[in-house]
Amino acid sequence: MLDVKNFDWEALLFGAGVIAAQIIGILVAFVLVRAIGKKLIDRFFDKLLVKGDVTKGRALTLQSLSENIFSYILIFILVTTVFNIFGLSVASLIAGAGIIGLAIGFGAQGLVSDVVTGFFLLLEKQLDVNDYVTVGSIDGIVEAVGLRTTKIRSFDGTLNYIPNRDIMTVSNHSRGNMRALVDIGISYDENIDEAMAVIQAACTHVATEDVGIVEGPDVIGVQAFGASDVTLRVIAKAKNGEQWAVERHLRKAIKEALDTNGIEIPFPHQVNIQKNGGSLES
Amino acid sequence: MLDVKNFDWEALLFGAGVIAAQIIGILVAFVLVRAIGKKLIDRFFDKLLVKGDVTKGRALTLQSLSENIFSYILIFILVTTVFNIFGLSVASLIAGAGIIGLAIGFGAQGLVSDVVTGFFLLLEKQLDVNDYVTVGSIDGIVEAVGLRTTKIRSFDGTLNYIPNRDIMTVSNHSRGNMRALVDIGISYDENIDEAMAVIQAACTHVATEDVGIVEGPDVIGVQAFGASDVTLRVIAKAKNGEQWAVERHLRKAIKEALDTNGIEIPFPHQVNIQKNGGSLES
Amino acid sequence: MLDVKNFDWEALLFGAGVIAAQIIGILVAFVLVRAIGKKLIDRFFDKLLVKGDVTKGRALTLQSLSENIFSYILIFILVTTVFNIFGLSVASLIAGAGIIGLAIGFGAQGLVSDVVTGFFLLLEKQLDVNDYVTVGSIDGIVEAVGLRTTKIRSFDGTLNYIPNRDIMTVSNHSRGNMRALVDIGISYDENIDEAMAVIQAACTHVATEDVGIVEGPDVIGVQAFGASDVTLRVIAKAKNGEQWAVERHLRKAIKEALDTNGIEIPFPHQVNIQKNGGSLES
Amino acid sequence: MLDVKNFDWEALLFGAGVIAAQIIGILVAFVLVRAIGKKLIDRFFDKLLVKGDVTKGRALTLQSLSENIFSYILIFILVTTVFNIFGLSVASLIAGAGIIGLAIGFGAQGLVSDVVTGFFLLLEKQLDVNDYVTVGSIDGIVEAVGLRTTKIRSFDGTLNYIPNRDIMTVSNHSRGNMRALVDIGISYDENIDEAMAVIQAACTHVATEDVGIVEGPDVIGVQAFGASDVTLRVIAKAKNGEQWAVERHLRKAIKEALDTNGIEIPFPHQVNIQKNGGSLES
Amino acid sequence: MLDVKNFDWEALLFGAGVIAAQIIGILVAFVLVRAIGKKLIDRFFDKLLVKGDVTKGRALTLQSLSENIFSYILIFILVTTVFNIFGLSVASLIAGAGIIGLAIGFGAQGLVSDVVTGFFLLLEKQLDVNDYVTVGSIDGIVEAVGLRTTKIRSFDGTLNYIPNRDIMTVSNHSRGNMRALVDIGISYDENIDEAMAVIQAACTHVATEDVGIVEGPDVIGVQAFGASDVTLRVIAKAKNGEQWAVERHLRKAIKEALDTNGIEIPFPHQVNIQKNGGSLES
Amino acid sequence: MLDVKNFDWEALLFGAGVIAAQIIGILVAFVLVRAIGKKLIDRFFDKLLVKGDVTKGRALTLQSLSENIFSYILIFILVTTVFNIFGLSVASLIAGAGIIGLAIGFGAQGLVSDVVTGFFLLLEKQLDVNDYVTVGSIDGIVEAVGLRTTKIRSFDGTLNYIPNRDIMTVSNHSRGNMRALVDIGISYDENIDEAMAVIQAACTHVATEDVGIVEGPDVIGVQAFGASDVTLRVIAKAKNGEQWAVERHLRKAIKEALDTNGIEIPFPHQVNIQKNGGSLES
Amino acid sequence: MLDVKNFDWEALLFGAGVIAAQIIGILVAFVLVRAIGKKLIDRFFDKLLVKGDVTKGRALTLQSLSENIFSYILIFILVTTVFNIFGLSVASLIAGAGIIGLAIGFGAQGLVSDVVTGFFLLLEKQLDVNDYVTVGSIDGIVEAVGLRTTKIRSFDGTLNYIPNRDIMTVSNHSRGNMRALVDIGISYDENIDEAMAVIQAACTHVATEDVGIVEGPDVIGVQAFGASDVTLRVIAKAKNGEQWAVERHLRKAIKEALDTNGIEIPFPHQVNIQKNGGSLES
Repeated sequence: MLDVKNFDWEALLFGAGVIAAQIIGILVAFVLVRAIGKKLIDRFFDKLLVKGDVTKGRALTLQSLSENIFSYILIFILVTTVFNIFGLSVASLIAGAGIIGLAIGFGAQGLVSDVVTGFFLLLEKQLDVNDYVTVGSIDGIVEAVGLRTTKIRSFDGTLNYIPNRDIMTVSNHSRGNMRALVDIGISYDENIDEAMAVIQAACTHVATEDVGIVEGPDVIGVQAFGASDVTLRVIAKAKNGEQWAVERHLRKAIKEALDTNGIEIPFPHQVNIQKNGGSLES
Repeated sequence: MLDVKNFDWEALLFGAGVIAAQIIGILVAFVLVRAIGKKLIDRFFDKLLVKGDVTKGRALTLQSLSENIFSYILIFILVTTVFNIFGLSVASLIAGAGIIGLAIGFGAQGLVSDVVTGFFLLLEKQLDVNDYVTVGSIDGIVEAVGLRTTKIRSFDGTLNYIPNRDIMTVSNHSRGNMRALVDIGISYDENIDEAMAVIQAACTHVATEDVGIVEGPDVIGVQAFGASDVTLRVIAKAKNGEQWAVERHLRKAIKEALDTNGIEIPFPHQVNIQKNGGSLES
Repeated sequence: MLDVKNFDWEALLFGAGVIAAQIIGILVAFVLVRAIGKKLIDRFFDKLLVKGDVTKGRALTLQSLSENIFSYILIFILVTTVFNIFGLSVASLIAGAGIIGLAIGFGAQGLVSDVVTGFFLLLEKQLDVNDYVTVGSIDGIVEAVGLRTTKIRSFDGTLNYIPNRDIMTVSNHSRGNMRALVDIGISYDENIDEAMAVIQAACTHVATEDVGIVEGPDVIGVQAFGASDVTLRVIAKAKNGEQWAVERHLRKAIKEALDTNGIEIPFPHQVNIQKNGGSLES
Repeated sequence: MLDVKNFDWEALLFGAGVIAAQIIGILVAFVLVRAIGKKLIDRFFDKLLVKGDVTKGRALTLQSLSENIFSYILIFILVTTVFNIFGLSVASLIAGAGIIGLAIGFGAQGLVSDVVTGFFLLLEKQLDVNDYVTVGSIDGIVEAVGLRTTKIRSFDGTLNYIPNRDIMTVSNHSRGNMRALVDIGISYDENIDEAMAVIQAACTHVATEDVGIVEGPDVIGVQAFGASDVTLRVIAKAKNGEQWAVERHLRKAIKEALDTNGIEIPFPHQVNIQKNGGSLES
Repeated sequence: MLDVKNFDWEALLFGAGVIAAQIIGILVAFVLVRAIGKKLIDRFFDKLLVKGDVTKGRALTLQSLSENIFSYILIFILVTTVFNIFGLSVASLIAGAGIIGLAIGFGAQGLVSDVVTGFFLLLEKQLDVNDYVTVGSIDGIVEAVGLRTTKIRSFDGTLNYIPNRDIMTVSNHSRGNMRALVDIGISYDENIDEAMAVIQAACTHVATEDVGIVEGPDVIGVQAFGASDVTLRVIAKAKNGEQWAVERHLRKAIKEALDTNGIEIPFPHQVNIQKNGGSLES
Repeated sequence: MLDVKNFDWEALLFGAGVIAAQIIGILVAFVLVRAIGKKLIDRFFDKLLVKGDVTKGRALTLQSLSENIFSYILIFILVTTVFNIFGLSVASLIAGAGIIGLAIGFGAQGLVSDVVTGFFLLLEKQLDVNDYVTVGSIDGIVEAVGLRTTKIRSFDGTLNYIPNRDIMTVSNHSRGNMRALVDIGISYDENIDEAMAVIQAACTHVATEDVGIVEGPDVIGVQAFGASDVTLRVIAKAKNGEQWAVERHLRKAIKEALDTNGIEIPFPHQVNIQKNGGSLES
Repeated sequence: MLDVKNFDWEALLFGAGVIAAQIIGILVAFVLVRAIGKKLIDRFFDKLLVKGDVTKGRALTLQSLSENIFSYILIFILVTTVFNIFGLSVASLIAGAGIIGLAIGFGAQGLVSDVVTGFFLLLEKQLDVNDYVTVGSIDGIVEAVGLRTTKIRSFDGTLNYIPNRDIMTVSNHSRGNMRALVDIGISYDENIDEAMAVIQAACTHVATEDVGIVEGPDVIGVQAFGASDVTLRVIAKAKNGEQWAVERHLRKAIKEALDTNGIEIPFPHQVNIQKNGGSLES
């Protein structure tokens, strides 16, 4: 197969030079077209956003997707052209259906899944750029939805690349008001009605101060009997994204109200029974 | 394959203009038809609900499904028409059975599962809009049952998109009365009969007050010997959705009854044996 | 494919009217037949039950299954008839074996599994309506065994729909007498023989009172050395469904017997060694 | 496909009457043959057992299996005969190989696995009726080994139906003598040699009393350094099924021997260092 | 298919008698041949072992395997002969390749895996009879390695049957010397160098006494800072099977050496800070 | 198949000598070409880096990949040449499509997945050499991205080889600023506003000192009610890679600020209720 | 198929004798060739190692692999020859492609995976003999890398046989310097700067003594706020294999330095609040 001795080395070198020149030309063109294309896409979506026809998240999603598709098409053209230079036709390659069949079967199977899932993620608006979502064990802000992978930025700054096929259930935390929930444990010795009144008063005051609160907050009653405390639960509805601030606000206000009214948030309690019999000499 | 030099650029531009005009026309039509269609569906189900032939949850389920199917059909027509403009016939594409076969095999396999499962979810009425359900690890109120995905709103406000194929066992918490259960730990020193009588009296009083209670509540006896307490169990049957309120009501009433009667809910107990021998110089 | 301009709209509208009339007629018939059929099935099983040829659970199981099969056959006839109206023959559809093959392969695969498993569940009487069973993580009373899904009502009132294919090992708790088991921890200081005698006396007394007890209860000996107690075990055999009541009865009786005889159920113990050396200035 | 108008209703009704008569006759025959067959099988195995050629467990296993196979053959004949009445030949059905192929592929695949596994369970005598076994997470006494399912009765009375294909590793606890193991914690202050001598004496005494003990019991030494105790281990070999009784016997005897000899089984210990500095005003 | 009326019952009964006689004859022959064959195999391996050409474990392994293969061949002959009596030829059955193909595909797939894995287990000497091994979650002494299943006897006496296909990683604990490891916690107040010297002296003494020790034991240093103690680690190399006895021996010797030298093995420590302020009236 | 007797041993030996000489020559050439090729690749990327056209991580990634591809091509040529010497043509081997099909199906399936995934890892820049990433349970610095495996160096010095196919979600921690987060528990007795002011002052001071901080640090409020403390949370944005140093810096500064201002970081609290009743004689 | 009566027993016996003689001859030859071959391989690698062209681990790896391949080839020849004696040609067996296809599909599938993975383990030098590696849940020293299985010796002496196909991510701990890490908890009352200075001094001293240290050790700061202590972290870089000794050395030195400077390593702390109110009569 490889006849090393009778090889025409000169022809090889000359041909290599020609091919190299062609490839360099194509690469330069590729880089230019890609830069220009990206700018045009960006400008288009900037205008779209100014006109206000779509929400910002949706615009960003479509923009990142458009650039994604644009890149893949360019790469496909690049590969095809380079193959042509080497005298290989992609069409004839694809025609070799047996090989393609195997390739699809083994390697590309996942790609098709990625693209199909990605298509439905967008069509059903499960994910938009800037949404706060949970996908499997990843939790963060969507940075881009691509044909093959979705990028999610965790709150600690990590950027996660998730193949679309691995996206099953999407939990989207940016689709309406969110609940703020605070549990407070009061002593078994306290009067429950009094404690609930004090907490409700604090909650009502917070509601007037905090514009992030949409509904409530309300003390809904005795949620559980703890080992050392009676747990009362407070629930409010907060604007999307404000739920944590509202919870922190409520915690501080309730703590201060309980302190003011002398209602104890109890530490763990234990009843100790002393034994000190003389028979234990050790 | 891509003869870059001898390309007829003029014809391309002109053709592109014509095609663009056609596509814009189709898109406008698509947006109009979609808006009108949705309104008609909404009006139809509003009337249906007024007549009272179906339950509200069922009506909402069918409405969300109808809009879902309507959308997919419109998109299919849209794609077909656009393909026609480019001279591609979907029929001939489908006829290329080998390719379609592979596509179904790899990409669409999941879609078929989604649709079949979705169909049985509806036929067997496992899920209705506004039901409170648990599906796998997701827990919340059903917001829509679609052909491909089911949307469930968690109690914290998160909207979960679950592909139908991932829905195995459905636990529907909106299919009849629910149990309210309260466990109370009393001291090992208390008389069990007396404690049970006090708790039963409190329960019976709650039953007269709380319209959410359907049956009971009853003290059923000594459920367990805890490390520091004897656990008594109270069980009631509550109207669907009222179980948590009933439990909270019962907890408050029982706590107050025990306080009034001087029956202790004990803290964790420990017997301490003091050793202080002189031989431990360290 | 879709020639929008030269479409014969009149013919379409007229045809649609005819078809609509036919469909409405069929739907009315469908509703009537279904209601009558269900009533006949109910009456048949009521009579069967009165004659007492089968157990009640078995009769309920077969009744729910019969209605299930009846429904699926009706729906199949309905779909076939509607398809006929549109000029589609189900037979010719099925003849298109390639497509059917794919459909079975991807979508219906699960259905066949459901039906085969359901068939054996019934044939081998693994499940009867009103049995208390555990299937996977679901635990409750069987409400219906269908061809495709089994419905189990949890004790908290939730209704669980389990596809039959997901039913592997069935643990049926309604197939004979059940064991009642109570573990009691006594102090390391107590005489074991004396404690066992006291507990056995209490057990023997319970046995005379509680008709739910079939065998025992017997104190079988020292089951374990706990951190702070010596664990004694009591075992009884109870009538099916009475095991929890028997356990509660036994717990109460044993607790009272131990109190009467001054035998302690110990709290957790700890030996504290005090160190208070002057060298620890911090 | 369904020509509702021109249907010959009379012929249908008459034919239905004939068929109904035939089916009733067959069902009666089926019930009779089944009852007689079962009795014959029972009588055959009773005699076999009396002659004592096989162990009792083995006889029960083969008996339950024989009845199982007998039932399936009867059902197959029943179904075949009923099909014949309707003019359907099972042979021709099977000849329709394509459909059968699919059916085997999807539905019956598990059945073949069940039967093959069941066959080897019996051939290799992994399970006999009345053996105490652990299969996966199920633990109990084998009640029947069938072609498709194995029934295991848990100690709490639950009857578990396990499809044979789900039986992987079988842990059979009825195949020879069993180990009895008791761990005793003694105080760090005790002399280990003395404690071991006391325990060994108690063990030797138990060995003379308890006929369930085959070998030992022996104190094998210091098994571990616990947080508050030095753990000594006692091991014995007991007759199959007697291991728990032996362990309970040993625990009681060792506890009493240690009490008699004043050797402490220590409670959890903790060294407390008191700090009470004046700078802690809170 | 089953013409019940015109059946020649006499011929059937006569034929059945002849067949029954034949089967009985074959079964008797089968039982005899099996008993004789087993004896011959046993005798052969006994002699082999006496000559000492192979290790004992290896001989036992090959013996159990030989009997296993012998059994399967006998059963195959038995089944073939019985089939012949009924006029069925196994060869013609196998020739029905389609059916065999399906059977192999679904039922026998696991058998082939079992045999292939079993073959390599033996060829690579991963398991020998009497080896102490861990396979998955099963832990014990190998009792037999068969073509289809491996039997492992747990230390508590249970006999585990593991299908060879489920044997992945084999951890063989009978392949060379084993490590004995003892961790001792000493008080934070002790001098580490002194404690290490005392422990090392005890270890060196044990090494002279215990013939199971091959190397060491050595105190290797401070392994960890515990909550209440400084953990020192002792490591030794022991003869295979002696590691537990060596560890128990070391524990006892080290405990006694520490006691003699007044070095404390500390109980859990806790610093208690007392607060008893007058403002806590509850 | 193997005619041992009539074998021409002389010819074999002579031929073997010739072949051996050829193979040695090829191996020498292989080693030389590999060494030269690697040097050329290294030099090329060194220059590329000096010019500064690409980031350092990207250059290293492409360099390691180039050497990887170069190696595989050399090995392929080597194998082909050696096969030629033995008179085997790789082309004809591949032409034996059936065998190749099986080989791809079973052995090489994973290789194709590895290469496809590796290709996209690089194309989408999910991983660069020197990035700090988490892939599954492996966490560390990327050392090389190859066609088949990716090498990640854990922080403890371990080098992990991950087949590309096992790389699902990539969490890249080197893609922008990172969050620094410190939780501080203060006593329930402290004034929350005062404590927050003290901590904020300490944070602001750290911000002026530590150049690793990009934004913040800010005290965001009461994050939780602990068992013995009120948890306050501080969040900052740090330069990539500086987040741990910033957190350590913040922890030290906040601890010292709280000490200075007499604000307590509380130990676990417990309320002890003493019981010492005379009735407890044991 | 098996005509038992007319069987020519004499011919059988005679033929069996001839065959037995042949097989014995072949087995003797096999044993001899195997012993000689192994010796030659060993000698070859011994020389290779003396010349020092390859690292020792690499030489051992290739040696164990060579013997492995040599064994499999011998066994293949043995089996082929024995088959020939019985008149079976392996070639003709393989020609029966259908059966071979099935065999490969079901039984040998895993073998191909084993060999392919094993090939890449060696080619990419992921494992060498004597490397300390973690593969899945197995952790130890590589003893041999074969074509089918890899042997890893655990530190406790167990020899693990892992099929190559089960080797996914390889964590090789013998590929460069390793990190030594020691966490020390100091009291909340200590001055952090002072404690860090004391620990750093101890570390610097250890660095001069311990030749296993390559870099550091350095105190990097406050790693965490514990429940009762402030955790400081020390990190060093140690020579491969020396990391544990370095850590033990550091722990001892730091402990002694802290003792000398009177800095406390605190025990768990707890604040106890005493309640002894007269109202608690129980």
